[in-house]
Amino acid sequence: MFKRSLVLLSTTTTTNTTKIVNPAAAATANATFNQISQKKKKTSKKQQQIFNMATSKKFMTLDTICPNVKSAQYAVRGELVIRAEALSHTLQKQKAEGSKLLPFDEIVYCNIGNPQQLKQKPLTYFRQVLSLVECPELLDNPYLDKIFPADVIGRAKQILSSINFTTGAYSSSQGIPLVLKSVAEFIERRDGHPADPNNIFLTDGASVGVQRILKLLIKDRSDGILIPIPQYPLYSATIELYNGSQLGYLLNEEKNWGLEVSELEKSYKEALAKGITPRALVIINPGNPTGQCLDRKNMEEIVEFCHKNRLVLLADEVYQENVYVKETKPFISFKKVVKEMGGDYADLEMVSFHSVSKGFVGECGKRGGYMEINGIESDIKAEIYKLASIGLCPNVTGQLVVDLMVRPPAKGEPSHDLYVKERDNIYDSLKARALLLNKALNSLEGVTCNPPEGAMYAFPQIRLPQKAVDEAKKNGKAPDAYYCIQLLEATGICVVPGSGFGQKDGTYHFRTTFLPSEEAIEGVCTKIADFHANFMNKYK
Amino acid sequence: MFKRSLVLLSTTTTTNTTKIVNPAAAATANATFNQISQKKKKTSKKQQQIFNMATSKKFMTLDTICPNVKSAQYAVRGELVIRAEALSHTLQKQKAEGSKLLPFDEIVYCNIGNPQQLKQKPLTYFRQVLSLVECPELLDNPYLDKIFPADVIGRAKQILSSINFTTGAYSSSQGIPLVLKSVAEFIERRDGHPADPNNIFLTDGASVGVQRILKLLIKDRSDGILIPIPQYPLYSATIELYNGSQLGYLLNEEKNWGLEVSELEKSYKEALAKGITPRALVIINPGNPTGQCLDRKNMEEIVEFCHKNRLVLLADEVYQENVYVKETKPFISFKKVVKEMGGDYADLEMVSFHSVSKGFVGECGKRGGYMEINGIESDIKAEIYKLASIGLCPNVTGQLVVDLMVRPPAKGEPSHDLYVKERDNIYDSLKARALLLNKALNSLEGVTCNPPEGAMYAFPQIRLPQKAVDEAKKNGKAPDAYYCIQLLEATGICVVPGSGFGQKDGTYHFRTTFLPSEEAIEGVCTKIADFHANFMNKYK
Repeated sequence: MFKRSLVLLSTTTTTNTTKIVNPAAAATANATFNQISQKKKKTSKKQQQIFNMATSKKFMTLDTICPNVKSAQYAVRGELVIRAEALSHTLQKQKAEGSKLLPFDEIVYCNIGNPQQLKQKPLTYFRQVLSLVECPELLDNPYLDKIFPADVIGRAKQILSSINFTTGAYSSSQGIPLVLKSVAEFIERRDGHPADPNNIFLTDGASVGVQRILKLLIKDRSDGILIPIPQYPLYSATIELYNGSQLGYLLNEEKNWGLEVSELEKSYKEALAKGITPRALVIINPGNPTGQCLDRKNMEEIVEFCHKNRLVLLADEVYQENVYVKETKPFISFKKVVKEMGGDYADLEMVSFHSVSKGFVGECGKRGGYMEINGIESDIKAEIYKLASIGLCPNVTGQLVVDLMVRPPAKGEPSHDLYVKERDNIYDSLKARALLLNKALNSLEGVTCNPPEGAMYAFPQIRLPQKAVDEAKKNGKAPDAYYCIQLLEATGICVVPGSGFGQKDGTYHFRTTFLPSEEAIEGVCTKIADFHANFMNKYK
Repeated sequence: MFKRSLVLLSTTTTTNTTKIVNPAAAATANATFNQISQKKKKTSKKQQQIFNMATSKKFMTLDTICPNVKSAQYAVRGELVIRAEALSHTLQKQKAEGSKLLPFDEIVYCNIGNPQQLKQKPLTYFRQVLSLVECPELLDNPYLDKIFPADVIGRAKQILSSINFTTGAYSSSQGIPLVLKSVAEFIERRDGHPADPNNIFLTDGASVGVQRILKLLIKDRSDGILIPIPQYPLYSATIELYNGSQLGYLLNEEKNWGLEVSELEKSYKEALAKGITPRALVIINPGNPTGQCLDRKNMEEIVEFCHKNRLVLLADEVYQENVYVKETKPFISFKKVVKEMGGDYADLEMVSFHSVSKGFVGECGKRGGYMEINGIESDIKAEIYKLASIGLCPNVTGQLVVDLMVRPPAKGEPSHDLYVKERDNIYDSLKARALLLNKALNSLEGVTCNPPEGAMYAFPQIRLPQKAVDEAKKNGKAPDAYYCIQLLEATGICVVPGSGFGQKDGTYHFRTTFLPSEEAIEGVCTKIADFHANFMNKYK
């Protein structure tokens, strides 16, 4: 039911002029054409006609490429963003000409969790260390002490000695041993349970790790992966690319996007009835786009469900530092939960993902991340290693940012106080902006938005007038996509329609980050409110 | 014929203790088990027996995971390297204890083109710019002028203003516009023909680009990709991962690894006979592992072959700066060739790949690269864009290294002379080392090695005594893999067996880089010679 509502947001901007008339013939025509041109036979008029109908002048057409690529959708950078980038060019023109072509002066990219694009400052210590490791000759500069604090210099020296004094060499496939060790120690401190550096794989952001594990798990459509609805479209897109089956389980919007095991059971049974073997369960905690945080009891139920049903647990925990209800629902990792449940549960097959892109680090452009495997046999681990090797290694600078994230300056070191101040400012400000945006959204006609517990997004439900729904359908758009395009064209604010994440049939949402700066966010709220009032008025 | 010789180099280091007795039953047992446990039916004794036989305690086993992952092979970081890393740990122990556990003091990694691992220095200008863009606060440092030359400061400011003053934000999926423009201008200068920034996609190294295009091209086993034999195993591994068909065409070792169109024709016809549609032709120029450089006439034949047979041309040109026969066979890009052939050829569907990892830049750890598309319809380009979007963006530091590679300091700028000196030193030294290694290899009994025209590798043929071949087979190893393991255990020199790249049946090779430093390479040659003499003597 909810699968249908993962509406296709086509990114195709133009269509092929040589239209293929008969797609069925096209599938075999290429080979036939080749065979005949190969044999240099004279083709009959009728054969020639088939070619003219069925083959394009081009070798690659939408009918010859991998159909899974065509059907995969990724709305976070889909139609809306492509349109926003086009508008951005118009704005540049507007600026250069001093003309007024658009009713706004800038695009506000709220479509993606990209804090530094919206002016979040990187942490000083991180960048000072990077600056030095990129250019080790600075270590011999007589002004060195006047440029960088002593702990930055010490850290850079330590890193350099562990990477053969250059960031320019491939590391081992799994990652730089120093960083693997730092990550394991971080996990141990966080969870109070041992972690083994040999079970860590560094990755170019969390996405690459997720894609690798899904590749490992999926053979064909008979393998299914349970994913939340709404979900982050990396999952739906990758499952589709690898020709697997998406098994959506609905989060309960009425219960603050709560995860109910009965929904897992339902989706699981439906899969079995279709002859699909569920292989893994994806949990995004804190949720994306929904922002909910799981409590321990709920997590234990999920672990039991996985164990009972022989499912690998994929724990997407990239928002673990973005929790705004720390007092009532502090972040708990699934690794900690399985270890504390003990017995067979402790060795549950599980992969946890983390990233430098989110939290207060926000170093998206660095593409740094890691995954930790738990309970996975060594022969399967060797396959994960091989997949990592085919990609050679994660980028080294990104690996080093992981090291800095999990091992920030210690208490007493010269950079510690500044680090803490910067970190806390970012966190406090994010929390304040989340609350502000939430309040603004809830004040709109027909809009409800659950309180933000975590992550970087609001995912309000918008109840659209029937006239707007009809108008959208007339334009071949999902109703929420139609709403979001109108919002973009009117205000320059770029958000992502709920249909890109999946949503309960008949409901409409959008996802917006709360990342615009404190100076900007009130303006964003006002613009959304004005647009919304006009939109509702227009279609009432 | 040659397909069989792509011998599997298993990376599996341990085996599952819970052995699955009946793999056929195992395939369905997971689902059945789930169905029954779901229904909470009491299972019969016989059913229980099937489970005990067929299911492992673990959910993921070599029988349940994607079979393409299992069958894909990547020897460049396979068994040999895993063993080398284990030996490296022993060496550390040896050093710490002052003991002598192994007959050598260091591992020399000649398995992979990783120049900076073997002490090649990064280019000064590149790293100075990176240092500054990572830490823009340095721009306000009163000592700035004493630290960096003026052109470095100018370049950093220009880059920063184009990326919102931070390397920490996701760029657009295709890459930073400034860098796309630099790349297009570089191609224009190189080829003398226009290039469009909109046809450039930045990638995390060339590998990611290759993988994306292969994903686009391959639907299932009925789609074939023509690849050279020997080839770089990224191609064979990726085609296998995506469930396509490898169509090998043999390079002619007797003619200096020449590419003969008759071999392309042969492989193409064999594919058609099997019902496989060839979709694309991979050309690696200069060759990897073979090092040959194509001349223009040969390239024109290849373009004609693609055009006639409706094949997308994938031009792997990552070694374009590593040409040691510039006078007789300068590097010519396929883009230039198709444009100068004109007519329909000019719009041949083609993707060219380049990287910052090779040439004299050698910044492997940065994972920077680009691909240029040619003649590809906009609807297909939209699909490539979508695949890039699912990965969010290439790492920003890597993108900036691409910018530096294609736009080094200009004549007259303060950093220009040093840049030229460093560049030429690296090039001259690589060429000298290539010749030295080639001579040393050709002096060995039963070894022949074609003269190095390009790239970073020697790929000698080794004629092994029958006794050695038999001994290898007794040990379940490909004969050349057996030779390479012995070499590693005796000398610490890590090379890759020819079986990892594919080779003509009954011939044996290995690939070694010529990257050890000038001080080290003579020692490497001597060690190989001593080992080889002993090996031949032992098995004669």
